[in-house]
Amino acid sequence: MSLLVTGSIGIDTVKTPQGQRENCLGGSSIYFSMAASFFSPVRFVGVIGDDCSFELPEVFAGRDVDLTGLEVRAGSKTFRWAGTYHGAMNERTTDSVELNVLAEAPPKVPDVYRDSKFVFLANTAPGLQMELLGQVDKPEFVAADTMNMWITEHTKDLGELLKRIDCLVLNDEEVKLLSREVNLITAAEKILAMGPSVVIVKKGEAGSFMASSDGGKFILPAYPATEVIDPTGAGDSFAGGFMGYLAKVGSVDSAALKKAIAYGTVVASFTIAGFSLDGLTAIKSDDIDKRLEVLKEMTSF
Amino acid sequence: MSLLVTGSIGIDTVKTPQGQRENCLGGSSIYFSMAASFFSPVRFVGVIGDDCSFELPEVFAGRDVDLTGLEVRAGSKTFRWAGTYHGAMNERTTDSVELNVLAEAPPKVPDVYRDSKFVFLANTAPGLQMELLGQVDKPEFVAADTMNMWITEHTKDLGELLKRIDCLVLNDEEVKLLSREVNLITAAEKILAMGPSVVIVKKGEAGSFMASSDGGKFILPAYPATEVIDPTGAGDSFAGGFMGYLAKVGSVDSAALKKAIAYGTVVASFTIAGFSLDGLTAIKSDDIDKRLEVLKEMTSF
Repeated sequence: MSLLVTGSIGIDTVKTPQGQRENCLGGSSIYFSMAASFFSPVRFVGVIGDDCSFELPEVFAGRDVDLTGLEVRAGSKTFRWAGTYHGAMNERTTDSVELNVLAEAPPKVPDVYRDSKFVFLANTAPGLQMELLGQVDKPEFVAADTMNMWITEHTKDLGELLKRIDCLVLNDEEVKLLSREVNLITAAEKILAMGPSVVIVKKGEAGSFMASSDGGKFILPAYPATEVIDPTGAGDSFAGGFMGYLAKVGSVDSAALKKAIAYGTVVASFTIAGFSLDGLTAIKSDDIDKRLEVLKEMTSF
Repeated sequence: MSLLVTGSIGIDTVKTPQGQRENCLGGSSIYFSMAASFFSPVRFVGVIGDDCSFELPEVFAGRDVDLTGLEVRAGSKTFRWAGTYHGAMNERTTDSVELNVLAEAPPKVPDVYRDSKFVFLANTAPGLQMELLGQVDKPEFVAADTMNMWITEHTKDLGELLKRIDCLVLNDEEVKLLSREVNLITAAEKILAMGPSVVIVKKGEAGSFMASSDGGKFILPAYPATEVIDPTGAGDSFAGGFMGYLAKVGSVDSAALKKAIAYGTVVASFTIAGFSLDGLTAIKSDDIDKRLEVLKEMTSF
């Protein structure tokens, strides 16, 4: 089924204990689309300035990523981010952020995307996420990401958004902040009561946890990767693998959600094995399926 | 098969965000034995002073725990520990420690225990662990716990111990300290090269990870407990469930090790639901089996 993503396109400069990469392609919609494209066609919505030297049609060449929703805005500058990862790369510091075009009006969702059935709203102001969602007619499954700034400063907007989406994806710090609860399971249940029928908590190298309003729970460790070069984009790749698989099978029942999380986990493990998109462009669908079997074997008893 | 445990018996005072309990029974061999007794008979080795008001035969009444190896040392004082857990109880501070009888000569392993086949050496100085192990004739599977102090200050002894045991159980900080490696998988592999054929890394609420010298890997999340009253003894209960199951089935093949870790995980989830032994004494074997099935369902895809 059709899968729409709205999110950022960024020019990243990343330092990790394994090396550094300047001015590489990044952003949530980029990682999401690359990850999801292994499973399903993707409809891309994002905006860059006319300073961007990356040719996205080339970046996604050979993949079913529809760039009708890519806006190149004259006179604007592309979003830039620089960050440094430390130690075992569980922690990162932001060295600089230039919102640039992301601080301007959001891109439009093209009319030809209005019939999209699966929608992922990558992290941005919840008001904008609602505006983008309002441009889709009858989505069947809407997932959104959010972050601490929106939880504390755009609480009302976020509350409204939560009533309109099916699935919220966030990390363990954010889930505690939003629920004001330290126990992760109780926290997830509180968030379910705010609207979404599925909550997914990303816990980095500790894996992920899903709770759903029918009482279902699923916990999966991260793939035990020995090759960690750059964690940037792991969360968006996880979301891409997750939503890509759901859109492919056209189902959001319990079995589909579990397998989608496993695929998201595996795709993210490839993302972190290289800078920028290197980890994802180095693999084929077969590699993902093989690693999924390994993960299954390593987590079964 | 016969299962021997050597470890501490303590009088604990514990404060958690859920309440506090003064002068309650604790110690590694106590938690281990209680947990293991759901699966297998246990041979107990430990020492207390004559100030100890706990009657261990009553504590273990109705359970197959052989207390021949319990020494009540006249004129000595029992080990005491006081600690406080904070926030989501991932962190704890030690308020006071009185080693008392633990700083004296260790207890003897009774001659009738010499034929023990499964042995767990709970955390103490590696020199003492070797001395205790030397009193067992031909053990088939020996597991040991250790901690940061022994890793940094008794490095040589620990190195010798590692050549004589089959399985090392330690937490994620300790595994990094011992291996001088931040990646957990690489760290575990380095420790395998030091001697043991199995390394188990306890990661608290992030679950556990096992690596074995035949290349096998197993990762299991913690049981998502909503009731966390007191985490004291979780690690020793994990070890008790793990070793108890192995001794019960008399096997240490890959399938047995995986299931043993799952049982250890489940037993630990009951331990943390109450102060001292309350969580473990409140349940029956059936409760453990039922929760194991729930954990299996929640981790399968």
